[in-house]
Amino acid sequence: MSRTPPSGVRSGYDVVIVGGGVEGLAAAWRTARRGLSAAVVDPAPGGGATHASAGMLAPVSEVTYTEEPLLRLGLASLAAWPAFRAELEDETGDDLDYRTEGTLEVARGADDMAVLDDLAAFERTLGLRVERLTGRECRSYEPMLSPSVRGGLLARDDAWVNPRRVVRALLTAFEKAGGTLVTERVAGIDAPGPGAPCVRLESGGVIAAGQVVVAAGSWSASLLPSLPVRPVKGEILRLRGPRGFLTRCVRGLVHGSPAYLVPRGDGEITVGATTQEMGFDPRVTAGGVYELLRDARELVPGITELELAETTTGFRPGTPDNLPIIGPAGPPGVLAATGHGRNGVLLSPITADAVAAFLTGDEVPPVARFCDPGRFSQ
Amino acid sequence: MSRTPPSGVRSGYDVVIVGGGVEGLAAAWRTARRGLSAAVVDPAPGGGATHASAGMLAPVSEVTYTEEPLLRLGLASLAAWPAFRAELEDETGDDLDYRTEGTLEVARGADDMAVLDDLAAFERTLGLRVERLTGRECRSYEPMLSPSVRGGLLARDDAWVNPRRVVRALLTAFEKAGGTLVTERVAGIDAPGPGAPCVRLESGGVIAAGQVVVAAGSWSASLLPSLPVRPVKGEILRLRGPRGFLTRCVRGLVHGSPAYLVPRGDGEITVGATTQEMGFDPRVTAGGVYELLRDARELVPGITELELAETTTGFRPGTPDNLPIIGPAGPPGVLAATGHGRNGVLLSPITADAVAAFLTGDEVPPVARFCDPGRFSQ
Repeated sequence: MSRTPPSGVRSGYDVVIVGGGVEGLAAAWRTARRGLSAAVVDPAPGGGATHASAGMLAPVSEVTYTEEPLLRLGLASLAAWPAFRAELEDETGDDLDYRTEGTLEVARGADDMAVLDDLAAFERTLGLRVERLTGRECRSYEPMLSPSVRGGLLARDDAWVNPRRVVRALLTAFEKAGGTLVTERVAGIDAPGPGAPCVRLESGGVIAAGQVVVAAGSWSASLLPSLPVRPVKGEILRLRGPRGFLTRCVRGLVHGSPAYLVPRGDGEITVGATTQEMGFDPRVTAGGVYELLRDARELVPGITELELAETTTGFRPGTPDNLPIIGPAGPPGVLAATGHGRNGVLLSPITADAVAAFLTGDEVPPVARFCDPGRFSQ
Repeated sequence: MSRTPPSGVRSGYDVVIVGGGVEGLAAAWRTARRGLSAAVVDPAPGGGATHASAGMLAPVSEVTYTEEPLLRLGLASLAAWPAFRAELEDETGDDLDYRTEGTLEVARGADDMAVLDDLAAFERTLGLRVERLTGRECRSYEPMLSPSVRGGLLARDDAWVNPRRVVRALLTAFEKAGGTLVTERVAGIDAPGPGAPCVRLESGGVIAAGQVVVAAGSWSASLLPSLPVRPVKGEILRLRGPRGFLTRCVRGLVHGSPAYLVPRGDGEITVGATTQEMGFDPRVTAGGVYELLRDARELVPGITELELAETTTGFRPGTPDNLPIIGPAGPPGVLAATGHGRNGVLLSPITADAVAAFLTGDEVPPVARFCDPGRFSQ
């Protein structure tokens, strides 16, 4: 794989994907696999929202279950994950740390319990395996849980994955499929006429393409101003503990906000996440870290003994209706694959399939119609 | 300045100082200034406890005022700081960010107020300038203080300095005085007979010395096992705010522990510090960061908006009586300058003077007799 062709040289690809996060790379891999020549342009692949993501593959939670289109999209993508993962691990030999022990959603007060009961009933109507647990049962599954946990739900169909490993594997798989990575920053997209879009690099070079996919996350609107995508800042922590400190994802409402702890196979625990509408403010704040530690500590007091290994910010690409934007957008030959909000890793298989289908003229997965970029101009 | 003479070559110096923290470098500078040839050996000068220090020059606080010898030592060193600083800034052209706006020690409850009243009375007997303030007066000095602050003391004679700048300036000044820095790790000290100690390097080299000073902080006992020095772990944060967010050092008891915020001229604020007897555990812990943010937030709620720029651990060299160990220790020709606990930066001028006097046979400052290494064997 040529990592950076000389600037100023106009090379051509069937498809140029702008953005090497989980969506751009998954789409690029699927596209290259279909025999198209493809390039991904990103100065730091995997360095955006994916880098700060926890990697939960959990389409149903207290946050999302009232949003039916997003739920259906998430369930379809969750169903696609086992094959997506198997293929990616087979092709690369990488271990994505894909875990299927389920999510334990805990309640600490009567109000929380009522919310979980409603959620459980709803999940059962979807055919999902969900178990209502007492506080004691919760602690028998996860002994580090706080004594204040009164009950919970075990969602057995939820899974999770290490997003940084997914990005690494996607890069490898894309390379094996003949793809090109250009580690440069994109200045703009030119589409003077039908069928001939170009990607202009900040270094001055230009890359000609049959089609262009804008998968630049929160920065997508700077390339396609018609896209109603905005950055939704999130701060996240990584703790380092002994293996097996937690076995499942633990989630709960603390002080009115959802908090979660996502354990990895190596003992790392991702704690998230704040939600702030502050534009592109890259600072890790004292208040954000304080709230994450406070809330995680209320669910799992023993985290205080663990190493605080990393603090990170990321910008979720938010949209007005919380649904992604996938499909032809703006000038002819230009597609969008952005706006995945907090569900980027979950939605990457379905997004990749949809983008590859759009690019090749194949049948697009039916659920992807919720993501039509044209819905905002109606 | 030769930074690293070739390993294995035996070179000789009048004095070799093991440890390039604030004590070792201050002593080395003073020694080189007296015309002795001197080398400091440290793989990472300034990287130990000094790196994690807040740099408060505050000999009297609720923690120390019952310990009279330490108090007298601290007051003597505080008195030496203005000249020490002026000389160091003159010789190097560096700005140490030496600040004299005083410490505001705040109280939030009746118990805290009673402690501060006792402290104020005591400080006045020492001739120190101290003002008793109402909560409103405290906030007129520092508008960011919490509304829960009921009163406080302004200690006008307290000062503070940026310890990282002090170390940098000391290195420069030592170099200008003809000193040699050897950036290697010391394996041991050999003193086969009177007057001929040697410093063995881990790389295999040996440095001959007329005299050796062990100023290796918490690691000193590994070189001189007779020294009762142990690591007292501390975690500390650096926040980044707008200039003038705070003007003075702010201290207070929160949840029974002393907390402080030390502002720099550039808007940085050091928040400290935890105290843990955990040996050499280098981890920044979730619990340590949580407590520091929680306590700082209770004193100054607006810190939540500031950037959390750094989390650091350090190991204060603790002794059984909380006093440093300065003077001839162990084999002939070997001196110690360690055990400064949480007062290393404050005590560096008096320590440097005492060490230089011991090395040259001059009169040692009288207060340094409290620090006699022999006191533990009596």
